[in-house]
Amino acid sequence: MATHLALAFHRKEVNVTQIVSRSRLAGERLARKVKAGYNDDFAVAGLQADLFILAVSDSAIEEVSRNLKPDNRLVVHTSGSVDMQVLSGASSNIGVFYPLQTFSKDHRINFSNIPVCIEASSAENEEKLIQLARLISKKVQPLSSAQRKVLHMTAVFAGNFSSFMYTIAEDLLKKHDIPFSLLKPLISQTASLARHEDVFSRQTGPAVRGDSKTMEEHLEMLARHGVYMEIYDLISKSIIKHKRRNDEL
Amino acid sequence: MATHLALAFHRKEVNVTQIVSRSRLAGERLARKVKAGYNDDFAVAGLQADLFILAVSDSAIEEVSRNLKPDNRLVVHTSGSVDMQVLSGASSNIGVFYPLQTFSKDHRINFSNIPVCIEASSAENEEKLIQLARLISKKVQPLSSAQRKVLHMTAVFAGNFSSFMYTIAEDLLKKHDIPFSLLKPLISQTASLARHEDVFSRQTGPAVRGDSKTMEEHLEMLARHGVYMEIYDLISKSIIKHKRRNDEL
Repeated sequence: MATHLALAFHRKEVNVTQIVSRSRLAGERLARKVKAGYNDDFAVAGLQADLFILAVSDSAIEEVSRNLKPDNRLVVHTSGSVDMQVLSGASSNIGVFYPLQTFSKDHRINFSNIPVCIEASSAENEEKLIQLARLISKKVQPLSSAQRKVLHMTAVFAGNFSSFMYTIAEDLLKKHDIPFSLLKPLISQTASLARHEDVFSRQTGPAVRGDSKTMEEHLEMLARHGVYMEIYDLISKSIIKHKRRNDEL
Repeated sequence: MATHLALAFHRKEVNVTQIVSRSRLAGERLARKVKAGYNDDFAVAGLQADLFILAVSDSAIEEVSRNLKPDNRLVVHTSGSVDMQVLSGASSNIGVFYPLQTFSKDHRINFSNIPVCIEASSAENEEKLIQLARLISKKVQPLSSAQRKVLHMTAVFAGNFSSFMYTIAEDLLKKHDIPFSLLKPLISQTASLARHEDVFSRQTGPAVRGDSKTMEEHLEMLARHGVYMEIYDLISKSIIKHKRRNDEL
């Protein structure tokens, strides 16, 4: 996250003054790329900055913020699931700058379509963060800590869990010598249908059709794959329930 | 399926001789579009045809095939989950022509990227079906009935279930006045990462990180949504198990 943000800001000519990282090698490399100073000590870092961005793991945010000496300048974290208030020990000007995306180190991220969720301790700070976010993204969304946590949790379903559905498919296909590539067009099409609202109106498959014969056959085929069978059963039941509730409305 | 296939063949100048449908209105409309005859009686239909395609619901395939008089010409069905052999009462030349995609009536389907899975009772029939499939699709894959059933079952995970993960996210966001559009870039990116093999190597989220604090928080937030909580719990546990198994290898 730190790497992707620093590079994105640098490309937009935001002055990145200092990279602080305990990993000297990665930190210095990034600092060179964005023409910033490097420091491994959070306590003395970034004295020239208007804004301190703590792109660290959730569990480290509070401790890192307490070691900062921000002199009441604006301090933000970048986490989806951590309350803004954990920063309150460090400064009275605090906020959150949360880009909603899965990052991997290996490829360059184009932030322009990645939503950035903003929260701040004052209207003035919010405005600052919104302006900064707009430099790199077309989608800037103010959200409270409570809303951001819900969003983060739903991203687990829409991102992490859908990805694991692909893994289950890939795993089962491999066991039967069937190329996983056969499913790729279906995966893309299914994801692209989610660009509409009311995704459920486009739900297909045996569960929503009430095709219990096919569901039973599938469960039988999954009998040797305990957890996959349980997942098939639970999600199918949930789809059936969802349909019944929708039909009643 | 019948509509999409007939239109795709017609565009490739395959001579569609007859549309047979119990629904006169839809049947006649389609017949006009593809310059074919129309009939509502399966028993007398298509006497001029080299190939009979039964694009009917799974449960109707066998009955419809028994009413045909194909005089031993080639008869195929288009189902992912039905055995080829259910056609054996109708002809000794039988097969399966299964395009793996979710069809909706409302938009024109471009078959070129849709895999078509082929099975046939003889090498000669297989070759015929492969040639026909290649006219409309770049991805033609011979599969046995057993393999096709596995593929169909895995399509439920990769398509139907991933779609339901989006529905759960949309449902929860709506309850908290958060726009679902925030998740769309994540959904596209997650699907596009499945173009690689070994999807699990790109798995992210609290479960694969072993971040039990976040998982507990999410489960607490889901406490009022019984089934969603169960799904969260079960899939997370399955991801953890999968990771442990992978790490041991």
